[in-house]
Amino acid sequence: MPFQLPVDVRTACREGKWTNVTAGLCGPFAQANLAILPADWAFDFLRFCQANPKPCPVLEVTDPGNPLLKRIAPQADLRTDLPRYRVYRYGQLVDEVLDITSLWQDDLVGFLIGCSFSFEAELLAANIPVRHIEAGTNVPMYRTNIACHPAGRFQGPMVVSMRPMSAQQAIQATIITSRLPAVHGAPIHLGDPSLIGIKDLDNPDYGEPVPIYPGEIPVFWACGVTPQAAALASKPPLMITHAPGHMLVTDRRNEELLKDW
Amino acid sequence: MPFQLPVDVRTACREGKWTNVTAGLCGPFAQANLAILPADWAFDFLRFCQANPKPCPVLEVTDPGNPLLKRIAPQADLRTDLPRYRVYRYGQLVDEVLDITSLWQDDLVGFLIGCSFSFEAELLAANIPVRHIEAGTNVPMYRTNIACHPAGRFQGPMVVSMRPMSAQQAIQATIITSRLPAVHGAPIHLGDPSLIGIKDLDNPDYGEPVPIYPGEIPVFWACGVTPQAAALASKPPLMITHAPGHMLVTDRRNEELLKDW
Repeated sequence: MPFQLPVDVRTACREGKWTNVTAGLCGPFAQANLAILPADWAFDFLRFCQANPKPCPVLEVTDPGNPLLKRIAPQADLRTDLPRYRVYRYGQLVDEVLDITSLWQDDLVGFLIGCSFSFEAELLAANIPVRHIEAGTNVPMYRTNIACHPAGRFQGPMVVSMRPMSAQQAIQATIITSRLPAVHGAPIHLGDPSLIGIKDLDNPDYGEPVPIYPGEIPVFWACGVTPQAAALASKPPLMITHAPGHMLVTDRRNEELLKDW
Repeated sequence: MPFQLPVDVRTACREGKWTNVTAGLCGPFAQANLAILPADWAFDFLRFCQANPKPCPVLEVTDPGNPLLKRIAPQADLRTDLPRYRVYRYGQLVDEVLDITSLWQDDLVGFLIGCSFSFEAELLAANIPVRHIEAGTNVPMYRTNIACHPAGRFQGPMVVSMRPMSAQQAIQATIITSRLPAVHGAPIHLGDPSLIGIKDLDNPDYGEPVPIYPGEIPVFWACGVTPQAAALASKPPLMITHAPGHMLVTDRRNEELLKDW
């Protein structure tokens, strides 16, 4: 299904006509991770994000009880405008649904968090190949031994995504992504995976493995799965997220995230 | 009084031996603005900061009720380790004190916010003169007609600081400060002050005016007075801040703020 604009994707989601992953849709536009929590848990979660901006770069926080966005996708409705959601209760996945209208509560707060899809577009634009896109698979992600800074009830290990590339490409990718702190910013590590507690690159904790060719090094970025992992570990009574890969497509172009976000 | 390290400044404040402004103390180390609010107001304030990261770059948020910092100045005590504080009740300045131990409450949350002293050190290091430092005066600051993004009970105009320089210096200063989003980042405007609602550069709303020489343009940065102005407009029952210029001296070097803050 071809989409001209982000609002077309969101409308198709709202009408139940698009229920698939959003990778590659509306390329120049940023996509966002979603986490929805009760207001009682919201301050601790926002503090956790503030303390860990590389894995958890917050793009927008909604008013408690209001499911409509104002800034990154004005009038987008968090209840309907993503293709697929996951529902967690007390840290357990209990459902995967296409719409959360019936679950909405007056005290829910939505957090929209930057996504590496944005910086991958910038890498490709700089002629730096992205292995898992070449392979048509999901990016490999790993739990590390890097502890996030705890905040209130939230704590947990940093999760990273990995992209193999040459040393020269790694240097260029560091420069490019350092300009985009709103979508995870510069890498947090490159080279020896054991230094950050990763035992086997062929067995990612999330996503799928990718080949690493001779002369390449693995490059690791903080990953948007981190806040979900921390939130789940803290077992809030209700937490709703996007289903992996089924993101909110925003009205902001990737390059706009250079600005005041 | 010469100070070797930030902890020496903080100890002198704690012992009542330093009650003056902190400008120029421990030059390579970042200083921070302080805002303390009751927990009931803390989420709205952090959302306001998240929505307005150029005027309100948050460096650390404390646990409710705990006056000790953990990250930017471990074990620093917010009740004693700044030279001078201001106390506001319902939006009115009611007191200026050297110590807030007697005012501390179990529900207070401290917010430490980046300060332009950090990027001024970087400008000077690049041989870009800073006019108000040359003049030995406080930086001129102005209310603008740029509305901050509102969040909950907080809203208000952006306050900016101004430094005159040549166009070439303005370009270089933009590059330098863009690397430091934790201390207000790149300028928000340069040139014609009327375009952001400033009528008369010779009459700043805060601080003191500085001369602008032929061939120079005014360059405007988002200012750490903005969150205080917004917080005061919202009239919380209690808010405690540093007295202007009497900052927390942190253990983080300015260049460290390039990292994950």
